[in-house]
Amino acid sequence: MPTIKDVAERSGVSVATVSRIMNNRGAISEKTRIKVHKAMKDLNYQPNEMARSLQRSKSHIIGLIMPLIDYAFFSKLADSIEETCHERGYKLMLCKSGNHQERELEMVSMLHANKVDGILICSRVGDASIYTKYDLPIVSIDRDIEKVPSVTSDNYHGGILAAQVLINARCKAPLIFGGEVPEYMEMDLRFKGFRDECAKKNVKSLELFVKDCDSYQEKLFTEFISFVGKNPQVDGVFVTGDMIAAKLLCLEKIEKFIKNIPVVGFDGIEISELLGISTVAQPIQEMGECAVDLLIRKVEGKMVPERSILPVKLIERKSTLRFRHE
Amino acid sequence: MPTIKDVAERSGVSVATVSRIMNNRGAISEKTRIKVHKAMKDLNYQPNEMARSLQRSKSHIIGLIMPLIDYAFFSKLADSIEETCHERGYKLMLCKSGNHQERELEMVSMLHANKVDGILICSRVGDASIYTKYDLPIVSIDRDIEKVPSVTSDNYHGGILAAQVLINARCKAPLIFGGEVPEYMEMDLRFKGFRDECAKKNVKSLELFVKDCDSYQEKLFTEFISFVGKNPQVDGVFVTGDMIAAKLLCLEKIEKFIKNIPVVGFDGIEISELLGISTVAQPIQEMGECAVDLLIRKVEGKMVPERSILPVKLIERKSTLRFRHE
Repeated sequence: MPTIKDVAERSGVSVATVSRIMNNRGAISEKTRIKVHKAMKDLNYQPNEMARSLQRSKSHIIGLIMPLIDYAFFSKLADSIEETCHERGYKLMLCKSGNHQERELEMVSMLHANKVDGILICSRVGDASIYTKYDLPIVSIDRDIEKVPSVTSDNYHGGILAAQVLINARCKAPLIFGGEVPEYMEMDLRFKGFRDECAKKNVKSLELFVKDCDSYQEKLFTEFISFVGKNPQVDGVFVTGDMIAAKLLCLEKIEKFIKNIPVVGFDGIEISELLGISTVAQPIQEMGECAVDLLIRKVEGKMVPERSILPVKLIERKSTLRFRHE
Repeated sequence: MPTIKDVAERSGVSVATVSRIMNNRGAISEKTRIKVHKAMKDLNYQPNEMARSLQRSKSHIIGLIMPLIDYAFFSKLADSIEETCHERGYKLMLCKSGNHQERELEMVSMLHANKVDGILICSRVGDASIYTKYDLPIVSIDRDIEKVPSVTSDNYHGGILAAQVLINARCKAPLIFGGEVPEYMEMDLRFKGFRDECAKKNVKSLELFVKDCDSYQEKLFTEFISFVGKNPQVDGVFVTGDMIAAKLLCLEKIEKFIKNIPVVGFDGIEISELLGISTVAQPIQEMGECAVDLLIRKVEGKMVPERSILPVKLIERKSTLRFRHE
């Protein structure tokens, strides 16, 4: 059976170039691409992934690993993924990692042992490069992992939109507020987009990322109260998730403060609509559909894009609108 | 291999009696019970269920069918079920029926074909007696189905608690409000409990069940507004679910009306805490744990109770409290 090395030799290019063409990555001239594809055809070469998936007998089961299920972003995503799996004739095996790295890895092994055709993962492990080693199609959701196809929303642009809506509501000292997230999480791009847009508009933004807390902890809010006490110039808040934004707006202790400045959230979950909170909405349903589609294409041995970035959308509601119409 | 008929003949009772003893149902004298158990032992009789589960090779996969995933009651339930399955060494296959009867039945067949060890179901089919015919352990959640073990919360007592909290807040004309539900749903018991408690306290309750709507539809609220317009005596509301209660309390159109009367919800999901809504909390996590435990026991061929009814708890918050402290 011909190898990638044989293809490289026959077409007179490096193995790396053949690999880039197979994975649809990097700038490759059309001439080289045609030459390599011809060599593949002549040698009757099948990429490993395809060979593997052709050999493997299909279970038509897809595994899904999420940090938790009972948070609206994830339950909506799971709903969409289940629906799409059903439409495509696949079953869904659902696993929760509880944000524990070890459990996440255990889940992957378990799903592998259970002969799922592929895995959708919202990974929280520090070094996710481990997923490139698995002999199993994997698609990452909400996070980029090198050499693993991913589906994310445009977090960077979302950050820009959040900055714009606060600046349009006349903020001079907007605050980014949320729990601290590891650098490898896509969420980081939201903050970058926000900072860049503020800098562009000559607005000096502030930041408060609370350590060692998840979104449900009291600590997040006590630190917020303390921070705005010390920084009374804060005149607008970009909260990194809708649920935290909702809790912030329902805090009786700082009701007078928080209800008199514009607030924008992120996610686009139902609570933001209910409480009239402006938000940068992620296309959660489409993210689920796209992820399942990519995974099934990988299972079928087809080539898939390495990065699928879906657009976000600003939904303005009274939490910012009323400050523009003053 | 001895049959149930052989056991009945040997112990001198009817097949129905043996069946009742096996399923732990109905009033049976201790004497009869001992006699039948002795006959079972003498004949080395194994109930079908047990025989079947011993024959069947285990997949250690449990199927879960829910009407939807992205509603807090269900996502919290799914979270708990996944967690418990994991602890017990089982995997979870998650299916959504979308409230469609046909799809629910299709899901059951699919799970059966995929050799799950058993199914947890939140059934929405009209005639659920179909589930007694399956050669597969099934446990029903949030609904009683004859001859199928079920896990529910104490909806009737929940209705009583809801009535009490409104009556304690001095309501003379409390309204039960929600979408119409089929009679076979456990939710009906909430209303019964509410009515019974009102009658006991000589309070005349009103009712509004909106037809052909799900909890997300506008119709629910336009009919509410119209109803209270025609029935201005309404001075308190028992809403059949926390999410509807939250939406009602956030309706700007009737803000003045709804914020000046006590409101109590049902479920105990996060939104009620966030908005300070009193609620009858279901033990959602424990319901999930209990359901998995029962199903695994059935899979292992053990006898399980037909009905497991878990207690509910009233959580009082400002939506009713401030009317008591006036």
